[in-house]
Amino acid sequence: MLHEKLNWRYATKKMDPSKAVSQDKVDRILEAAQLAPTSSGLQPFEIILVTNPEVKAKLREAAYGQAQITDGSHVLVFAAWDNYTEARIDSVMNDVANVRGGVSDALTSYYAGLKATYLPRSEEENYQHAARQAYIAFGIAVTAAAFEQVDSTPMEGFEPAKVDEILGLRARGLRSVTLLPLGYRAAEGDWLAGAKKVRRPIEDLVSKVA
Amino acid sequence: MLHEKLNWRYATKKMDPSKAVSQDKVDRILEAAQLAPTSSGLQPFEIILVTNPEVKAKLREAAYGQAQITDGSHVLVFAAWDNYTEARIDSVMNDVANVRGGVSDALTSYYAGLKATYLPRSEEENYQHAARQAYIAFGIAVTAAAFEQVDSTPMEGFEPAKVDEILGLRARGLRSVTLLPLGYRAAEGDWLAGAKKVRRPIEDLVSKVA
Repeated sequence: MLHEKLNWRYATKKMDPSKAVSQDKVDRILEAAQLAPTSSGLQPFEIILVTNPEVKAKLREAAYGQAQITDGSHVLVFAAWDNYTEARIDSVMNDVANVRGGVSDALTSYYAGLKATYLPRSEEENYQHAARQAYIAFGIAVTAAAFEQVDSTPMEGFEPAKVDEILGLRARGLRSVTLLPLGYRAAEGDWLAGAKKVRRPIEDLVSKVA
Repeated sequence: MLHEKLNWRYATKKMDPSKAVSQDKVDRILEAAQLAPTSSGLQPFEIILVTNPEVKAKLREAAYGQAQITDGSHVLVFAAWDNYTEARIDSVMNDVANVRGGVSDALTSYYAGLKATYLPRSEEENYQHAARQAYIAFGIAVTAAAFEQVDSTPMEGFEPAKVDEILGLRARGLRSVTLLPLGYRAAEGDWLAGAKKVRRPIEDLVSKVA
């Protein structure tokens, strides 16, 4: 089931601008990203859902003109925390306390440990760590889109500083890491649509220590 | 369907050492990781599948004693390429040519473009980029395990240099980034097994630019 979906999807090169993804499908894709596992459950990222045509046009410019951004109906921008902070970790702790029956010594102690780990680290190191977590959610969002029979284009080819500027991300303590246009493949004009998927043979990808 | 699986899974804290995951389930988890999308299709990582008890015991030591590594039947070690090289990019190009009908000018030109992008970059920058791709596959492997009703523990808490040493990864141009023990949750002794999943509310995680 999962493999069928992963085989169905591909990095769509040409979206049909006349077809929009329904809100309920977009919601389910976002909910899957929300369920992604992240280090210590911190979910150190946000997702910006862009449908505004002017903003999409600007994002396209920041992404070397890739047309999926404007031809697709939605763009998800995955933006990692620029740093771990006490306030951010406390906010997660409060969410956990709310769901799991209040603050306890064990809970406080666990999050104090996380603060002791992250807060002394450099902003760059923490950002890189946060970005990796965003990639987990990004991969799951791509997978979720396939389950919805929605096409998507996982996209790293853009200028992050420009995307950050367009969306005002730095002021919110965020840095863009990936884009995910959502839409429907154009029946014609996508050279990759019919191409056979290429993956490294499993015996090259995986080695065994038995 | 996907959401049900994502809700079922959790970072298993206690595995039952008497239960082993079947080889066909492990194979399907690896095949899902193989299908993960990566930047330009380079798949810049390998997965080391560890079942050897002595090696698992060493990995456990390198991971602050986390018992899932030895209580689970299998451990997947996700190891990113330490750098992009001409040989590695050529190898991917040859795979693509083999599957999609031979070398063409367009193909050669595409991979020449990738080399022009990656080869001048620092080893550290390329490694960080490769590591992010490994995280996509890692998230999909976690998801695939849930589809197999196999428990797993996404794990970053280990000393990468020690894991690299135990598995001889640096000599192979690899650096460990995550571990994924696979097994079956212990009926008793896992405090997290019954706990409610905590996720940031969707309205905090997602903002809209409409």
